[in-house]
Amino acid sequence: MSLKDIINNNLTYWVSADGPERDIVLSSRIRLARNIEKLNYPNRAKPAERAEVTKRVIEILSRQEQVKLHYMDVNDLPVLERELMVEKHLISPIHAQEGSEKGIFLADQENICIMINEEDHIRIQVLMPGLQLGKAWEIAGELDDLLEGKLDYAFSEKWGYLSTCPTNTGSGLRASVMVHLPALNLTNNIAKMLGAVSQLGLAVRGLYGEGSESVGNIYQISNQLTLGHSEHDIIDNLKGVTKQIIDQEKQARQLLLQKMEFKVKDQFRRSLGLLKYAYQISSQESMKLLSNVKLGIDMGIIDDVDSGVLSELMVLIRPAHIQKIEGKELDETARDIKRAELIQARLNM
Amino acid sequence: MSLKDIINNNLTYWVSADGPERDIVLSSRIRLARNIEKLNYPNRAKPAERAEVTKRVIEILSRQEQVKLHYMDVNDLPVLERELMVEKHLISPIHAQEGSEKGIFLADQENICIMINEEDHIRIQVLMPGLQLGKAWEIAGELDDLLEGKLDYAFSEKWGYLSTCPTNTGSGLRASVMVHLPALNLTNNIAKMLGAVSQLGLAVRGLYGEGSESVGNIYQISNQLTLGHSEHDIIDNLKGVTKQIIDQEKQARQLLLQKMEFKVKDQFRRSLGLLKYAYQISSQESMKLLSNVKLGIDMGIIDDVDSGVLSELMVLIRPAHIQKIEGKELDETARDIKRAELIQARLNM
Repeated sequence: MSLKDIINNNLTYWVSADGPERDIVLSSRIRLARNIEKLNYPNRAKPAERAEVTKRVIEILSRQEQVKLHYMDVNDLPVLERELMVEKHLISPIHAQEGSEKGIFLADQENICIMINEEDHIRIQVLMPGLQLGKAWEIAGELDDLLEGKLDYAFSEKWGYLSTCPTNTGSGLRASVMVHLPALNLTNNIAKMLGAVSQLGLAVRGLYGEGSESVGNIYQISNQLTLGHSEHDIIDNLKGVTKQIIDQEKQARQLLLQKMEFKVKDQFRRSLGLLKYAYQISSQESMKLLSNVKLGIDMGIIDDVDSGVLSELMVLIRPAHIQKIEGKELDETARDIKRAELIQARLNM
Repeated sequence: MSLKDIINNNLTYWVSADGPERDIVLSSRIRLARNIEKLNYPNRAKPAERAEVTKRVIEILSRQEQVKLHYMDVNDLPVLERELMVEKHLISPIHAQEGSEKGIFLADQENICIMINEEDHIRIQVLMPGLQLGKAWEIAGELDDLLEGKLDYAFSEKWGYLSTCPTNTGSGLRASVMVHLPALNLTNNIAKMLGAVSQLGLAVRGLYGEGSESVGNIYQISNQLTLGHSEHDIIDNLKGVTKQIIDQEKQARQLLLQKMEFKVKDQFRRSLGLLKYAYQISSQESMKLLSNVKLGIDMGIIDDVDSGVLSELMVLIRPAHIQKIEGKELDETARDIKRAELIQARLNM
């Protein structure tokens, strides 16, 4: 199989498909946290209780034809496969660790992923390319309705859906967008903008979830609280703020063209040159350069590379993906060399 | 005319032709300083005396068929043309300035250039690609014999050929080689090596003559004194030292491959990537990157660029050449942009 085929076979839906506002919003995600009444939460549940959760959800999902989902027991998956799922943002790093009755339901396109016995009994996740919170919510809601019709969810009239963690109690909804904001960074406006976002009750994180640094000017923005807010309000609020962020980033891009056209042109093209010619490259440096290249594409300065390159490569250049593509374990230096090859194969595609 | 044609039309013999040891020795030069008896040296000569020098040399050189030389009065040449000749190392910056009766005899291939009324009445220069001091000396010697047969050179039995400057008195010979020593630099052995060369009575200079810094790891090595040494000894000594330098540089290249293969591979390829993609680039940075690329080619790491690229571009990317190629005066930013275009046109040839 050619490297080109291998690359294409390893692209997941939200990474490779197009979506609205894709130049700035890489993806939208909806996650619903649900628990089953009368069963202890996973962290306190006995194996039998955890097995009960798995059994009931499998029963329901295998008897419907609304959406085709494959069930996998986490313990049955090779470590590398689990790491791939983490790198694709399908499951959490915690869920990738072995443990009793931890399960995953996955749609063919990988746009739907349900984690069983992670922090909650059930976590429904929908991932879409671009700004598609409404569409993601629709898909998640249908799955939620399907499960709720057959299960007694832990629910209180006063608090809403109950959860192990108070921040998930209420609607149990976490909506998030992954945004690429390089021009706000280059014009030194990023701190101000992210500060304003926090003040609006939204959380800002780096590429790999809580506590992670921003890599490649990519930020995840999500609602902080689910209690006391309707699903509709949460999604509308995030959508509104995201649109403002898009406007700010677009203004910053205009400013770059007006104030320092030659400088940024030079920087974007040099980044492409380094990506195309490096013999070895770290994940961190790749992301920095890919961020520049994507901005160059989106600003019309680089025209022989397609805009999907950042979202594709931000996943493909992670260690597990490189090792899967190469078919064996690799040390850091070997990964840096293979990463450069992979990037070059993709850029020349 | 295409940029490719323009580039080819602007290449001078020593730059584009091949020669022995060309991977390390870019060029060899022989320069003979001669003065005519009973005429004051140019700095003290009256216009009539200077005109007398010109007249006599023109008479001799126009009546021979040994070598075809074109005469030009410096004052008749546009400033840009003179600057081009300086950048091609054909004439000195001082000789490019206007002044009475300053002349240049130039061979078609530009491998021979005779300056009239520079510091001395006559300066015969021969420039050859690679290590060809013997051949250059042969050509210069024939011209010298030709002139000496018809002119009374200022000569003393005790001191030899007399000159304005004591360092040129004696044989009047300056022999020099231009060497590319990047590996000695990368392995931190350059200072030691150049120190040893100085102790052997040789002078080390940067790319653009006395007092200039080394650019692109290129050094000019020449004899310091001409008094009390035969031409043969001077040339033999420089040739011997140059061969030792070549050996040292080759050993350093081996060391790089053994000790830091991946690192240098990465550095050379990245240099090529930057040269191929930069939107604007300074002369200084170009030389640094071109030096890396040439080393990459000579070490077999880069195989899709030919080794002549450094000596060609080190001349073509200088301000006067860029302005000639572009056909108009350019400010620094415009030159940096055109320089990048020119380098990319050459690299893609």
